[in-house]
Amino acid sequence: MMKNMIIASTSTVFGSGYLEYILDDLKLHFKAVKTILFIPYARPSGITHDDYTAKAKDAFSKININVEGIHTFKNPKTAIEQAEAIFVGGGNTFVLVSQLYKIKAIEVLTEVVQNGTPYLGTSAGSNICGLTMNTTNDMPIVYPPSFKTLGLVPFNINPHYLDSDVNSEHMGETRETRIKEFLCYNTQTVVGLREGSWLQVLGESITLKGPFPARIFKHDLAPYEVESGKLLEHLT
Amino acid sequence: MMKNMIIASTSTVFGSGYLEYILDDLKLHFKAVKTILFIPYARPSGITHDDYTAKAKDAFSKININVEGIHTFKNPKTAIEQAEAIFVGGGNTFVLVSQLYKIKAIEVLTEVVQNGTPYLGTSAGSNICGLTMNTTNDMPIVYPPSFKTLGLVPFNINPHYLDSDVNSEHMGETRETRIKEFLCYNTQTVVGLREGSWLQVLGESITLKGPFPARIFKHDLAPYEVESGKLLEHLT
Repeated sequence: MMKNMIIASTSTVFGSGYLEYILDDLKLHFKAVKTILFIPYARPSGITHDDYTAKAKDAFSKININVEGIHTFKNPKTAIEQAEAIFVGGGNTFVLVSQLYKIKAIEVLTEVVQNGTPYLGTSAGSNICGLTMNTTNDMPIVYPPSFKTLGLVPFNINPHYLDSDVNSEHMGETRETRIKEFLCYNTQTVVGLREGSWLQVLGESITLKGPFPARIFKHDLAPYEVESGKLLEHLT
Repeated sequence: MMKNMIIASTSTVFGSGYLEYILDDLKLHFKAVKTILFIPYARPSGITHDDYTAKAKDAFSKININVEGIHTFKNPKTAIEQAEAIFVGGGNTFVLVSQLYKIKAIEVLTEVVQNGTPYLGTSAGSNICGLTMNTTNDMPIVYPPSFKTLGLVPFNINPHYLDSDVNSEHMGETRETRIKEFLCYNTQTVVGLREGSWLQVLGESITLKGPFPARIFKHDLAPYEVESGKLLEHLT
C-alpha cells in the first residue's frame, strides 16, 4: 500500500457549504471506505469535539460514508491504527498539534498514512502534513511541545494562502512577507495553497489540484507560481 | 522610580514615516534621555540588526536622541541594566522572544522597566509587555522555549488589531475569532490595540492613547470597546 492523501487548503470555499466544493473528489478518494475516523482536535472557534464531528458526519453522509470521532474511542492510538480512513479537520494548528503530542499519536498517525490509510486534511489538518507547523497562520493560543509535524510531504504547507491586498492600509505583515521571514531562519520549501486548491498525494507523487496555481517559496529563489495539474514532489 | 512605558500597536501608520505619528509623544516620554538602547531582535523581513538600528537611529535623530543597538554590546544583559531608556522594535515576536530567552534577558528587562527605565515597544516589542505572547499575530517561524513574556501589564496585548472585513471572501479566521479561541484555553484579558493606538503606563496607571478605541476581550464577557483616554489597569 502507498500514501493516498488529499491535503486541502480549506474545508470551505466562499459561498459554499462545508466540504461541498471537493465532495466529488472525496467520493473517489474514499471510494472503498465505509467509515472515516475524524480527528476534531483543532476545534475551530472552540467548538466541542462532538459538535465538530457531527458537522463532518453531516457532510460525509451526502456521499454515504460514516464518520466517527476519535474522542469517542477509549484508546485513540488504537483507533488510528485500526481506521479505514482518516480526516483531520481544520481549526487551530497549535491546539491540534498539542493534543496529538499529548496522546503520543504523531508517530502512529504518520505510520498509518505512510502505509496507505486514505487521509484527508483541511487547513490545520493539512498544515500538519508538512515538515513543521512553522508556516501556520494560526494564533499561538497554546504552547505545543514541538513544532515538528508529520512530514508526509517533503516541504511545509501554508494553507489559506492569501495574495497581498494592494489597497490595504493595514501595516501588519503580508502573507508573503511572513513566509519570506520564515525562510530567513529555515531552508525547507513552503507551498502556499490558495483556498480551493489541494494536493493529491499518491505514493511519492504529489499533484496540485483545484482551480488555482500554488505559490512556491524556496530558500534561494524568488517566489513563483505552479499551475494546477503540475507535480510538486521535487520541491524539497 | 516607577514604570514609564509606551506600548504602541505599530511603529508606522499608513501613509506616514517610521514612528512619525507618535514622535511628539516620544519627545515627552524620553525628555530626560540622551541615548536609547534599541533591541532589534524581532528583525522585520529579516533585516539585519545593524540596518534595523540605523532605521531607529534615523527616526530618533529628529528629536535629538541617540540610539545604540544592543547587538553592539559585548554583554547585552549589562547593556539593559545600564540603559538610560529602552526601545524594543517590531518584527516577528517568535524571533524576538527566542533571542531574549537565549541571552537570558527576560528577567533583567522586566526588572529595569519595573524600576523606571523608560520603555517604548512597538508591535512585537509591545506584545512582550503582556503576560504571554499567545495573542501575537506573527507566524511561528522559530520555536521559543516558552510563550511567557514580561508581564509588565496584567493582560495580553494584540497589536495591529484589525476589525473584520465584512466584504472579505477569505475563509481564514478573523482576528476576533482567533482571540475568542485563545479565551477557550486561557483566562487572561486581551487588549486589541488598533494601529495608531498606544498604552501609556505610569506606575500602575495604564491609559489608552491615540485616536481609536481599544477592543477588550474578557474570558467571561462579550467583547467591548474602551474609548481613548480611559484607564485600563482594572483589566486583569
